[in-house]
Amino acid sequence: MAEFDLIRRMQDIICIPDGGGAAKCVVGIGDDGAVLDIPDGQQLVVCTDTVVGGVHFPADTAAAAIGHKALAVNLSDLAAMGADPAWFFMALTLPADNDDWLSDYADGMAGLAKKTGIMLAGGDISSGPLSICITALGLVEKGEALTRAGARKGDLVVVSGTPGSAANALRMRAAGQAPDGNDMEALEFPVPRLALGRKLRAMATSCIDISDGLLADLGHILEQSGVGAELAMENLPCPASLENAPGDERWPLQLAGGDDYELCFTIPPASAWQLEEISIACAVELTVIGNITDRGLVLKTANGEHYEPGVAGYQHFYQAGAENS
Amino acid sequence: MAEFDLIRRMQDIICIPDGGGAAKCVVGIGDDGAVLDIPDGQQLVVCTDTVVGGVHFPADTAAAAIGHKALAVNLSDLAAMGADPAWFFMALTLPADNDDWLSDYADGMAGLAKKTGIMLAGGDISSGPLSICITALGLVEKGEALTRAGARKGDLVVVSGTPGSAANALRMRAAGQAPDGNDMEALEFPVPRLALGRKLRAMATSCIDISDGLLADLGHILEQSGVGAELAMENLPCPASLENAPGDERWPLQLAGGDDYELCFTIPPASAWQLEEISIACAVELTVIGNITDRGLVLKTANGEHYEPGVAGYQHFYQAGAENS
Repeated sequence: MAEFDLIRRMQDIICIPDGGGAAKCVVGIGDDGAVLDIPDGQQLVVCTDTVVGGVHFPADTAAAAIGHKALAVNLSDLAAMGADPAWFFMALTLPADNDDWLSDYADGMAGLAKKTGIMLAGGDISSGPLSICITALGLVEKGEALTRAGARKGDLVVVSGTPGSAANALRMRAAGQAPDGNDMEALEFPVPRLALGRKLRAMATSCIDISDGLLADLGHILEQSGVGAELAMENLPCPASLENAPGDERWPLQLAGGDDYELCFTIPPASAWQLEEISIACAVELTVIGNITDRGLVLKTANGEHYEPGVAGYQHFYQAGAENS
Repeated sequence: MAEFDLIRRMQDIICIPDGGGAAKCVVGIGDDGAVLDIPDGQQLVVCTDTVVGGVHFPADTAAAAIGHKALAVNLSDLAAMGADPAWFFMALTLPADNDDWLSDYADGMAGLAKKTGIMLAGGDISSGPLSICITALGLVEKGEALTRAGARKGDLVVVSGTPGSAANALRMRAAGQAPDGNDMEALEFPVPRLALGRKLRAMATSCIDISDGLLADLGHILEQSGVGAELAMENLPCPASLENAPGDERWPLQLAGGDDYELCFTIPPASAWQLEEISIACAVELTVIGNITDRGLVLKTANGEHYEPGVAGYQHFYQAGAENS
């Protein structure tokens, strides 16, 4: 199948037209480039992330999960910036022309694209080892994008969902055991927290997605905001699958596991009362796990002792995170 | 080296700040996404293209050439759209941490980025088989982007440079012979025709880059414009290295060779007088090679005979072209 036909077919399956309004894809698939109208008063947010077969997912992962996740990791970055998804560009490198694989892959991607209203506006198909590079474009009102740089002393540190799920699924599978269903869902079909990102625009002082692990990514916030944090380990929201595991077993997974597409963000204490409402509106658990301090990162157990994590973050070689850097 | 450090280092080497003015990178490398200001009245042009080691370039290609070309093929797409380069995002997948390789690669990319004024605004580093996916963002005054769809009967068909150079270099190398220096330059350090693309905005009725081969890419213009063309084979501008080759030897290379980052475009005959001036201003050869007809694509030799090319275009498997489709 020719490159042109293949991208067209992807578009037919994914089939998200423009949302209308001032943001418009004037020239789409089938030219040397796409031409896009950016509404006045809005800023463009651009995220790019690659997933490589055998590195970011096992070679035998279902095609639908690969299609979903390749897009999800980019949408998660848009969510962390508080942006509304608009268009995406997909560069797909694959070793052989396999119609069934492509169809399942496109279906997986289409499901998420439809749910989130992001339009496939261009792409590129190459022959080679399986790898998918997606560049996602989002829009945000001028000056409202969330960054990693605004956390202030006294702010609360909040995390969405139950970090550690994806890492636990990986661990169980590596041990030849059947992972918990929710954990597998977190690993293979992560839900980008777009609605939450939108709500946080007016409220959060900093935000990041924790694809590289909670500790490593919170570390980026601390570094770029020039602050520190103290976390209460007993407040760390726990996946059901790890509820009976002792701290020494579950905390490393939760702090450094990575591949969880949850958001970690900071808010002024005066905004804490809004968390419950946002949690309900976005159908996602939100938990205050600590607060911002002057400097350093301290983890405290329930009895007030310092907990020293054995692992700093989630980075095997150039492990691609979901970050722009 | 951590992903973050590596992209930062690439930025240090490439080091193109914002051009200033209304187009501005407000948040760059080091957050989940880049935040960009798009000037009012301008449209965004987005191109994406991947080059894969062993597919788009031999494994032993110099790192500087790989860095240059990965960016050049995307800039060539911006040129074909008549867009001004603004920012690019680089997803680099590489098998091992090799400082010398990275340094040369970054230098090759930096040279072209500086010449063309495009800023590295984000990226992603992964471990895996060598592959570079670049997404380039350009700007164009609203409604002025060049597309493939506007060619009209009677228009002249024009090509820049001397198509066939890159293909001839590949052929010589495959035969174990030393390629011509200009041909190697065309293959490894192609010059995106950005100045030409800018000049054509107000003049061309359609435009494409001929990375997939002149015939295949002109075919896209004809299909999307709903027209045909007649080309005069004796007018095809010839690389010096092929000047003494008979038509049957050089024409297939020139028509279907691919990997030449020249532009093919159509103009109304009344604009033909401007070609010489544009050619001088842009320091690139421009040659009228035929004209647009109602339908079909006819190639005529000097004695009026039809020439039947044995090859339709440049597409081995999913050979990635420099097109958005």
